[in-house]
Amino acid sequence: MIATDGHGTQTIAGGVTTPAGFRAAGVACGIKANGKPDLSLLVSDGEASAAAVFTTNVAQAAPILVSREHLQQAHGRATAVVVNSGCANACTGADGMRDAHEMTRLAAQAVRCDDASVLVASTGVIGVKLPMAKVAAGIQSAAAAMSHDGGAHAARAIMTTDPFPKEAAAEVTVRGKTFKVGGMAKGSGMIEPMMATMLGFVTMDAGVEPALLQRALKAAADETFNAISVDGECSTNDCVFALANGASGVQLGEEDYPLLVSALKLVCEPLAIDIVRGGEGATKLMTIRVIGAKTDEDAKTTARAIANSPLVKTAVHGGDPNWGRLVAVAGRATRTLVLDRAKVRVGPVELFANGAPYDERAPEAAAYLQGKDIAIEVDLGTGGSGQARMWSCDLTAEYVRINAEYRT
Amino acid sequence: MIATDGHGTQTIAGGVTTPAGFRAAGVACGIKANGKPDLSLLVSDGEASAAAVFTTNVAQAAPILVSREHLQQAHGRATAVVVNSGCANACTGADGMRDAHEMTRLAAQAVRCDDASVLVASTGVIGVKLPMAKVAAGIQSAAAAMSHDGGAHAARAIMTTDPFPKEAAAEVTVRGKTFKVGGMAKGSGMIEPMMATMLGFVTMDAGVEPALLQRALKAAADETFNAISVDGECSTNDCVFALANGASGVQLGEEDYPLLVSALKLVCEPLAIDIVRGGEGATKLMTIRVIGAKTDEDAKTTARAIANSPLVKTAVHGGDPNWGRLVAVAGRATRTLVLDRAKVRVGPVELFANGAPYDERAPEAAAYLQGKDIAIEVDLGTGGSGQARMWSCDLTAEYVRINAEYRT
Repeated sequence: MIATDGHGTQTIAGGVTTPAGFRAAGVACGIKANGKPDLSLLVSDGEASAAAVFTTNVAQAAPILVSREHLQQAHGRATAVVVNSGCANACTGADGMRDAHEMTRLAAQAVRCDDASVLVASTGVIGVKLPMAKVAAGIQSAAAAMSHDGGAHAARAIMTTDPFPKEAAAEVTVRGKTFKVGGMAKGSGMIEPMMATMLGFVTMDAGVEPALLQRALKAAADETFNAISVDGECSTNDCVFALANGASGVQLGEEDYPLLVSALKLVCEPLAIDIVRGGEGATKLMTIRVIGAKTDEDAKTTARAIANSPLVKTAVHGGDPNWGRLVAVAGRATRTLVLDRAKVRVGPVELFANGAPYDERAPEAAAYLQGKDIAIEVDLGTGGSGQARMWSCDLTAEYVRINAEYRT
Repeated sequence: MIATDGHGTQTIAGGVTTPAGFRAAGVACGIKANGKPDLSLLVSDGEASAAAVFTTNVAQAAPILVSREHLQQAHGRATAVVVNSGCANACTGADGMRDAHEMTRLAAQAVRCDDASVLVASTGVIGVKLPMAKVAAGIQSAAAAMSHDGGAHAARAIMTTDPFPKEAAAEVTVRGKTFKVGGMAKGSGMIEPMMATMLGFVTMDAGVEPALLQRALKAAADETFNAISVDGECSTNDCVFALANGASGVQLGEEDYPLLVSALKLVCEPLAIDIVRGGEGATKLMTIRVIGAKTDEDAKTTARAIANSPLVKTAVHGGDPNWGRLVAVAGRATRTLVLDRAKVRVGPVELFANGAPYDERAPEAAAYLQGKDIAIEVDLGTGGSGQARMWSCDLTAEYVRINAEYRT
């Protein structure tokens, strides 16, 4: 994967402690009644450049507000991230703000840095206060346990009811020198309703100025974490953090921006796709591509509508090559659809083109839909070059069961 | 209900043939394989003023395009409406346009009026051509069968897999004289996937100029048919027609506009609510009210997001008084939510106010959610007077089952 010009990228096994100079731990401190790991600590050996993208939901949880505040105070630098699962600390008012601040203070004490150099994230039930005595003990244990190969433990302790942990890593060579990128994420696998937060954490041992890291993280997140949907919901706690500590000795500058975005995407894309694969009740991954749009924005709007359409999601679940639903969704999502020149492809099978269906191909498409990885392509027929890609999953009776169960 | 000034309204039993001077029939002509009624004819004894609202979907079915064309050609007048179920005549290209035109020509011949005085609507499978020999025979039978009390038959023959027919009527007194309004509708109860069209038909024996009728129908539809959601989908065939034939001798003018809108809403609202009650797999009707918004538009956007939220719909299905999901949806739907002053009420129970939950009231709200008619109110806390109302239903495993089944 390394080209002759000394540049190259490849994905490797690993997670947040794969890049040099990062330690992590995941412990159980009793926030979750079932005794599973529920507190993670991620620490850079020296202060790192830090960047974040936060939920656009106006109802923002306390940890979102505190992390945003700290990033500003510390001018885009951070040493540690403390994360708990089992309680979202959202809609908890002034008490929630005090608790989120206290989490950063305790973590700062444990790893010996400024309070403002600690970021915080929470995921779990909305409207319930954190059990702070347990959290405090958990931070102590995590600080004692953290190690340069603790990434997998940290990835487990941020899960709520995700069916599997999500980690990714990559190695990037630039001008003949190598640095590493790692990441972990959690998605929305709910057993207890009201748990639907997406969290992502990316580490990197290249040195990057905070402003450049922020710009690159935003760009990478837009095409990965912001291009997935399980059920079209957007939580009060969603956030993605990136830390770059320079421990590899590689320094990236403005001229490396495209490479930096690619490096972040190498880790963010598999994490984002894994969130969809592990979506509530999901049995199939849908990769939706919209092409032939007037603008990328049009294509994105259409792809998002398809990704969130219950009729498309149930048809894919049932293995029904229902191109009519795709045309109907595209038609309501964008004013620019040109029906006579639109095309619908399910996997390799073209089912609709130039205003006419190819129903004789339905059995072939139905056979394709028996698989787990489903590609759907809609050409809006405008002749334009606008395009977009989204990932989504099928809608199942299991999704309904998981989310309809009364919290008891 | 009739006030002393000689104005008044009341709902009565009935349907499209309740107003004077309308005949209707519903027959089985074999479009549906199961032999159920599938063709309706609705005829005014004299040419009536006509108005229509059509789907905003860009992928518009042939009958939509032909009806729009005829309304223009006939300057807002119409004599008959011919409707078939079992086949949507959508995404059928030039053949579909020819068939829709042929349906109006055959109906015009049968009832002796101009082709352009006939409107047409279709509902059923997308991408399949109409069996025109059967349709032609059906139009003949319907013309022979139609009567001044055939409304209930017509209401049955427009159903696809709706669990029950939907009819409504009202009596309106103005300046001491009385006229009647009637209506029928079909919603989206699917057994065969790809059938999800909403059709509505309103008759009235008052005389109303076409332009006034059109304005009033648009206003009434916005607060009724456009304020419902089963699954957020918008079909290629949705339409609502209104015919006003003046047979009662009552003539309504510009000064009667508010009364006219009220009269139309008296019929459109119960039809719209019945569509939701009969939604695919639905077991509960949700009436969602958003208040305290800066503008009505903001309130509507928020109410629509709640109406379409799978997390809210599954929580209502499971009887879970999950106010956190309502706050989270409001927070992503509008930038104007003021969390510290927002309120959430489920039925009579306030669960969240001034930034704090009242979780001790959850059992009371859970008991309320055991009912079939669920009221949800969200105050966005802006102090503004913007408000909106939407009707929706719960999301059930039955919805998934119905829509996931492969068309065979």
